[in-house]
Amino acid sequence: MATHHLAAWSCNLKYSDLPQPVIQAAVRSFYNWVGCAIGGSKHPATTIAYNSLSPFFGSPQSSLLGHQGKTRIDAQHAALLNGIASHVHDYDDTHLDTIIHPTGPVASALLAVSEWRGSVSGKDFLLALITGIEAECKVGLAVWPEHYDVGWHITSTTGSIGAAVAVSKLLGLSIMQTTHAIGVAATQVVGLREMFGSHTKSFHPGRAAQSGLMAAVLAQGGYTSSEQALEAKRGWANVVGVTKPNIQSDLDKWLGMDSGSKDGVGLFNEGVGRWEILRNSFKPFPCGIVIHPIIDACAQIHNQMKKEGLDVKNIKEVHAKVHPLVLELTGKRKPKDGLEGKFSVFHGAAIGLIYGRGTPSEYEDSVVQDAGVISIRDKVDAEADKNLGADETIVVATMSDEKTIEKHVKHAVGSLEVPMNDEMLWRKFADQCVSVLGDQVEAVSQACWNIETARDVGEVAKLL
Amino acid sequence: MATHHLAAWSCNLKYSDLPQPVIQAAVRSFYNWVGCAIGGSKHPATTIAYNSLSPFFGSPQSSLLGHQGKTRIDAQHAALLNGIASHVHDYDDTHLDTIIHPTGPVASALLAVSEWRGSVSGKDFLLALITGIEAECKVGLAVWPEHYDVGWHITSTTGSIGAAVAVSKLLGLSIMQTTHAIGVAATQVVGLREMFGSHTKSFHPGRAAQSGLMAAVLAQGGYTSSEQALEAKRGWANVVGVTKPNIQSDLDKWLGMDSGSKDGVGLFNEGVGRWEILRNSFKPFPCGIVIHPIIDACAQIHNQMKKEGLDVKNIKEVHAKVHPLVLELTGKRKPKDGLEGKFSVFHGAAIGLIYGRGTPSEYEDSVVQDAGVISIRDKVDAEADKNLGADETIVVATMSDEKTIEKHVKHAVGSLEVPMNDEMLWRKFADQCVSVLGDQVEAVSQACWNIETARDVGEVAKLL
Repeated sequence: MATHHLAAWSCNLKYSDLPQPVIQAAVRSFYNWVGCAIGGSKHPATTIAYNSLSPFFGSPQSSLLGHQGKTRIDAQHAALLNGIASHVHDYDDTHLDTIIHPTGPVASALLAVSEWRGSVSGKDFLLALITGIEAECKVGLAVWPEHYDVGWHITSTTGSIGAAVAVSKLLGLSIMQTTHAIGVAATQVVGLREMFGSHTKSFHPGRAAQSGLMAAVLAQGGYTSSEQALEAKRGWANVVGVTKPNIQSDLDKWLGMDSGSKDGVGLFNEGVGRWEILRNSFKPFPCGIVIHPIIDACAQIHNQMKKEGLDVKNIKEVHAKVHPLVLELTGKRKPKDGLEGKFSVFHGAAIGLIYGRGTPSEYEDSVVQDAGVISIRDKVDAEADKNLGADETIVVATMSDEKTIEKHVKHAVGSLEVPMNDEMLWRKFADQCVSVLGDQVEAVSQACWNIETARDVGEVAKLL
Repeated sequence: MATHHLAAWSCNLKYSDLPQPVIQAAVRSFYNWVGCAIGGSKHPATTIAYNSLSPFFGSPQSSLLGHQGKTRIDAQHAALLNGIASHVHDYDDTHLDTIIHPTGPVASALLAVSEWRGSVSGKDFLLALITGIEAECKVGLAVWPEHYDVGWHITSTTGSIGAAVAVSKLLGLSIMQTTHAIGVAATQVVGLREMFGSHTKSFHPGRAAQSGLMAAVLAQGGYTSSEQALEAKRGWANVVGVTKPNIQSDLDKWLGMDSGSKDGVGLFNEGVGRWEILRNSFKPFPCGIVIHPIIDACAQIHNQMKKEGLDVKNIKEVHAKVHPLVLELTGKRKPKDGLEGKFSVFHGAAIGLIYGRGTPSEYEDSVVQDAGVISIRDKVDAEADKNLGADETIVVATMSDEKTIEKHVKHAVGSLEVPMNDEMLWRKFADQCVSVLGDQVEAVSQACWNIETARDVGEVAKLL
């Protein structure tokens, strides 16, 4: 009964049921997603898709992010293109238990529908966003990790279901209609990991958004699907999780209902009050997560040096102890360009030391090839230490006068233990958006922070 | 190298390479598909999808079948809706080795693109149709049967790839662009068998057509995907065929290249000159294939009775020997309506005896519930005989004067051994289309038969 229960739970959830931290997490997820989508709006993957598909665009219903309301197209294509843009820099959010990037598929569909239908309040938008994110993460947990190991891009294979649940919620579909929407979404399984490294990776969350949107609209019109789409013998979980033993019990664990409970908030078996959105995290740096601790530690060293009036040029050597995976995945000593820089823990250390941060601009080709950056990079040494956690590092910088600065990062910034605060999210947002939005960046940022009180989310979409 | 080889084979194939029977098979496949799509154009699954998605339609580029050029929408939605219509009565063609219904996804995409782009000749259209059908059946063979057994609807999971290859061919994409198109199509895996029995079953070939079309258009614009989408460790075949042992050797068998050969016609390892389209078959009756032998035999009895001036009312009893699967799948003694009638070998026998045929009109509720039909149906008895083939039956009708008529059908009409001839295809076409096309049905039929010599396939589309 996983399909029915998910539909019933979503239909019954009310805004007043939401704990304040859940609402706050939704606002932050939305805010981070907008920044990523605006930041990715000029990427070739986005513009090629826009140009190629433009012959098929319908009425101007929904805005493309990064165009501030100047480019509006039909809601389906807007969902696709905003979804592509939001994932293309690999800078979006992460539900760490499943490595789903949850907001892209759901928010891309929802924002497009909100503007198309009009008069959607911020509260209704956030409520729908939360149902969608919970849906995709719960179904993801049911098939994780075998599903991902086999080769599915779990963000999009679950994303269409999340988007369908969210749009169904926003449009006020009945439990039965929502059930059918889940089915039409579940039958569209988009995303092979083989596509990583090509434009098609970012196509995945975009297409998931579009598929989920279409599923909800079809179900609203009376289109039928299976009522056991998730749990049936030849339904979604058994087919896409075919290598996972006991998948029925996992479905029951994550999407079943407490015996004796009626459908409603937090009634999933696995813990009353467990909200997946509270386990969502945001990347402070646009590179693989294993490099995050060292950038964090080096930025802390930068800050201390600044405070003490020390010059980065006076660094003699830097020694880091890191988890063995770090060197295995990102041990590139001499990265040639920005893309290779993302796979170099040494470049990560250098930009942390020099700039005190690691933003997309520090991963431009010119920075990776800069002589000053290279001279610092070459002073960095890293040693694997299997006693360290994956998000832990110890970095010691020795100055030319033999003075040392040591930083021990137990959990990198952006982890669940040390989440990015709102100020950091703002800096990330501004860094991605300023070249697109210019002096509008603060106003746009504020409109996103205030999404909960928006009277018409579609009007916000036009600002983005 | 399966992906590259498929792309290269398609790009290099010329019309002059095609054997005459292959061209003829393509014309017949197209003709049968048009009849099914017009016949399904008023079905609720088609009209609900049309109404629900109409807010998103773009420019009038491509015609919806069954509207004779009066309803034209953007090519993507036309591909989707014509694909739905062509499958909704389960009356379309079957590649018997894989039970793929091959023409739906490919022709739905191709016809929409032909009309959108304009000036596509009949020969270019057929050439592209053939590349698409070969592509989907070859990739299907590589993952069959485990892929289907797990729960994938193989028509649509392979159909997006077939549609992408076909549209790439029609648009004149390079080998590299076609490779990327295959990748974007392969990452969109649509179709769970759990959806059988709901509207979503017919959504599958429609969405596959749309996905393949989109893939080709994106690739033409420069969108990139993996260049090993089919054969990579986490590519299409390994992911959707995860339970099949030795899938790499099956890929090589069906999509590999003869050593020492250059890319080109019939160079797939498995037999020079093996064309999957020659193994395509057409259903004479709109019901499960296991009932076809008994309808065939009973229609033959009908014809003999007519010749001898005997009245069906004088039948005393009818005894049939059938393959055991027939009673297992279609043993419903008292079907209540048209849908249940499709699962009753007894109703099948009755309409064969009374009408000498089994067309969609004999599966309307009123016929299944008709007292005269029921009285004949109740005289039919069927016995399982495991010595008979699945498409074989022996039927003996005994008249009230104890005279008997016996028919032994070794291979039912519609099988590869006893294919439907052109006259039978015409009757099937007319029966599906007359209520939609009225007195235009013969002219439209003729235009489809003459597709090879059409100067502009888009003009033909407007007649349909």
